[in-house]
Amino acid sequence: MKLSLAAELAVRGAVVLGEQYGQGPTTLADICELRGLAREYLAKVFAMLVRAGLLTAIRGKKGGYILARDPKDISLLQIIEAVEGRQALNRCQYDPPKCDNTDTCKMRRIWSELQDLFDEKLSSMSLADCI
Amino acid sequence: MKLSLAAELAVRGAVVLGEQYGQGPTTLADICELRGLAREYLAKVFAMLVRAGLLTAIRGKKGGYILARDPKDISLLQIIEAVEGRQALNRCQYDPPKCDNTDTCKMRRIWSELQDLFDEKLSSMSLADCI
Repeated sequence: MKLSLAAELAVRGAVVLGEQYGQGPTTLADICELRGLAREYLAKVFAMLVRAGLLTAIRGKKGGYILARDPKDISLLQIIEAVEGRQALNRCQYDPPKCDNTDTCKMRRIWSELQDLFDEKLSSMSLADCI
Repeated sequence: MKLSLAAELAVRGAVVLGEQYGQGPTTLADICELRGLAREYLAKVFAMLVRAGLLTAIRGKKGGYILARDPKDISLLQIIEAVEGRQALNRCQYDPPKCDNTDTCKMRRIWSELQDLFDEKLSSMSLADCI
């Protein structure tokens, strides 16, 4: 069971912006240097976070990225889903489910319970908890 | 965040053996027919479960597979780890960690908490709970 690399990078980058929150924009170059991340990849990931309304890109010479709201109001689940899409632990949790056996399968309830547990936990943790 | 397809198949196949527990071996062909699984793939996955000591392969005309012990004594975590290896939610949870920043990173504690939560939950659920 693995988090995608893109989601992990998104969290790492967003944590830096959380640390700098209220101090103006931070450039990609600074974030990448601070955390040893690949700039091209982080740019793609941050573009997804901007589209999801979690980050704001500020243009211009003193531009960069800022969090779109307070770190305590951004959950890890929001960041991960902005990158991975709606999470599905396994194939029968997809929408629509990738299985023909959804009516009679007793495992489905168990996977759903796990899915809910993971979502709740990631939803209860904010960027502020990570700083 | 996703479970591997192999791990999901392993659980689905093992659940069938759990349902048949105490009634002698079940053939791969029967399991695949019951659940609509691909035989060649399930054979590979079951070989991993045999190596992990969770299943026993019975040779001969009336051969097939049986669980190596009672379904209540086989956890979902054991099945998943038999196929995926020791689970790591993300790169800093690998052994050794795939990050240079392990001493100062505050996210590491959070990922560890999540990892422990997932492992505990999967460890607390047995095959008997899935039948």
